[in-house]
Amino acid sequence: MRFTSEQRLDDGVLEREFTLGEIPGILWTPASAPAPLILLGHPPLGLRKMYPRLVARAQQSAAEGFATATIELPGSGDRPRWPAAEQAHADLRRAMEAGEPVSDEIVDALILPLVDKAVPEWQTALDSLLSLPEIGGPVGYSGGVISIGIRLAVVEPRVSAAVLFAGSFVPRAMFEEAGQVTIPLHVLLQWDDEGNDRQAALDLFDAFSSKEKSLHAHLGGHTGVPQFAGDAATQFFTRHLK
Amino acid sequence: MRFTSEQRLDDGVLEREFTLGEIPGILWTPASAPAPLILLGHPPLGLRKMYPRLVARAQQSAAEGFATATIELPGSGDRPRWPAAEQAHADLRRAMEAGEPVSDEIVDALILPLVDKAVPEWQTALDSLLSLPEIGGPVGYSGGVISIGIRLAVVEPRVSAAVLFAGSFVPRAMFEEAGQVTIPLHVLLQWDDEGNDRQAALDLFDAFSSKEKSLHAHLGGHTGVPQFAGDAATQFFTRHLK
Repeated sequence: MRFTSEQRLDDGVLEREFTLGEIPGILWTPASAPAPLILLGHPPLGLRKMYPRLVARAQQSAAEGFATATIELPGSGDRPRWPAAEQAHADLRRAMEAGEPVSDEIVDALILPLVDKAVPEWQTALDSLLSLPEIGGPVGYSGGVISIGIRLAVVEPRVSAAVLFAGSFVPRAMFEEAGQVTIPLHVLLQWDDEGNDRQAALDLFDAFSSKEKSLHAHLGGHTGVPQFAGDAATQFFTRHLK
Repeated sequence: MRFTSEQRLDDGVLEREFTLGEIPGILWTPASAPAPLILLGHPPLGLRKMYPRLVARAQQSAAEGFATATIELPGSGDRPRWPAAEQAHADLRRAMEAGEPVSDEIVDALILPLVDKAVPEWQTALDSLLSLPEIGGPVGYSGGVISIGIRLAVVEPRVSAAVLFAGSFVPRAMFEEAGQVTIPLHVLLQWDDEGNDRQAALDLFDAFSSKEKSLHAHLGGHTGVPQFAGDAATQFFTRHLK
């Protein structure tokens, strides 16, 4: 892990860009250290595009004493192109523009390779992040591609609580994996998410084996998550990571 | 409205019992006045039996600067017996003990007369409560029989936000009434509520016309609402009543 830039934000949060081999990432740390860490998930649209929303979540988390970090997903942003993923995205776009149902094959091709490739990268990032003196204590995962959050919750024992956003396609195989999740979960659902199957999201919530799980559904579309939903997610992490 | 007793609780909250004609009730006020008011709904089990849970909600609300009040439901506690309601309860018990589905007729007989009788009483209580100098500002309704909350939200313009507990039988007629509700709503659902139809609760949430509505579902049975769910409900009222 190599830090490539550093700036102090208005509220005193330290923002540092880093690379982890070929993978770019960003770490935000509050003044209080050592701080528990939240991994910030995001959709595969590139860190640059996602930056405004990520930094807002980072600052909100820092205000409650959390460090946050994120890394670029495979095939996104400045990382090497990934033809198979681009093909899956093109197939998805074509189906949606044609008004056709999105087939299991398309969802599998879109999500499963991404999960298989991304999750070990997040674990490697975690190795490096937890070796920093300013990071300490338990780790949470928040948002982004829900299947990545599910897989991390299953395979990574250092992740001890997760906020999941039920706002992306979920391969059928992940429903079975969801049954292996036992850490505390806080699941967000946008009730009128355009591209999301509400019933599938409810079934997925039902499938988790966690003894503490809450579903917070809010009126509105995919990007309409209200500000107070973020506050509730932070409170969830405060209960479980402090 | 006539106060019949008064005591100061450990945390400084003033608890006063009152009667409103034949109807007993309790008012809790915080040190800061005038305070916005939350009406505390409850199931028809009698105020005496519900007191421990009600006073806990009252003290949690007072800590955030809210006054709270509740009145006995018709046919409950020390109020005159109500043979029709007792018959409906006996029919419900018989159906459940026999493992039969609870028919629409039983639900209607159980809930509709209760709503018709209780809601005007809560409105009368509101008249008296809002005339007190220590009560001021907007009014919220919280918990109890969800159909009473729905009717109050429709007919009582002074109620400007509601926390509803999707944990009791809902007559079909109330789904239509739910479509007339437009105030901000915070709906609680216990995911494994024994006596409650989860899909009906989700359909009811869908039916509300409110522009701001959130569903908070938590793992567990009817009485297993976690402590942090109460905190979130109080934060909802803080956003809307202050």
